[in-house]
Amino acid sequence: MVVLGVDPGTSVTGYGVVRPGERGVNTLVECGVIRTRAKDPLASRLSEIFDGISEIIARHHPHAMAVESVFYARNVRTTVTLGHARGVILLAGKRAGLEIHEYPPSEIKKAVAGTGAATKEQVQFMVTRLLRLKSPPSPADASDGVAAALTCLMTSRIDALAGRRR
Amino acid sequence: MVVLGVDPGTSVTGYGVVRPGERGVNTLVECGVIRTRAKDPLASRLSEIFDGISEIIARHHPHAMAVESVFYARNVRTTVTLGHARGVILLAGKRAGLEIHEYPPSEIKKAVAGTGAATKEQVQFMVTRLLRLKSPPSPADASDGVAAALTCLMTSRIDALAGRRR
Repeated sequence: MVVLGVDPGTSVTGYGVVRPGERGVNTLVECGVIRTRAKDPLASRLSEIFDGISEIIARHHPHAMAVESVFYARNVRTTVTLGHARGVILLAGKRAGLEIHEYPPSEIKKAVAGTGAATKEQVQFMVTRLLRLKSPPSPADASDGVAAALTCLMTSRIDALAGRRR
Repeated sequence: MVVLGVDPGTSVTGYGVVRPGERGVNTLVECGVIRTRAKDPLASRLSEIFDGISEIIARHHPHAMAVESVFYARNVRTTVTLGHARGVILLAGKRAGLEIHEYPPSEIKKAVAGTGAATKEQVQFMVTRLLRLKSPPSPADASDGVAAALTCLMTSRIDALAGRRR
């Protein structure tokens, strides 16, 4: 099961494609960011995000999409604009027939770093270790997308084990 | 210039297609609502909204889309979810090559009913009069979409007149 993890943003959307490897070690297939320009109209930026995500899906044929659920930013306007970006990301996944999983930021931190209160650096460190990478995912903004994908793979493995034991 | 006006919502998205008629009287071509079920996953609902808007565009070939800009609901969660719906609506317009105009609710009320503080009933009444309809747009939720389209037609007419006078 290949998973595409996405950390939505209107300026920078981070993503990571992860697949299960041998002996329970997951493998990073690709990670990166989709950047849009603040001066462009919102509809154009949303179109770029939709196209970017659709291209990644076409390239790697993931089975599932894992998306960070809404983060209540201090600024309401930012949070609402973020909702627009998430909307077109979910749409891209749905139209490609992907299973869609949403995780609150704290759940991603807990799955990857053991605590919902983990810092950005701790998450990066653990993502690097879990995927046996030589250096943290680059650019740094891709890291949270990779963490979302890892969360999906790790929780579905736990669910599968729990099912087997029943 | 045919205009598609949209009043975004995750449960109910109202829309109206309006075209300039003779002697400055605008004509309502079609209006209606796109309804989605609260129990369905968000990604499915967004896909239905995107498909619904895309179908209306394919049917009437509007030149422009007029969308109510974000309304800060009392409930942050509702506002954010509304952002998702707006995101896929703007995307549908952008992908079809439409000119996109966004208007705050108060600007729509002012253009249609003369005051930004107009009630829903006053807007409905004026929409009915301006379009020479026998009864208000039905269902009632379509009314704000129609009002957005009217705002676009009325303001672009004023802009055109202002341009001519310069």
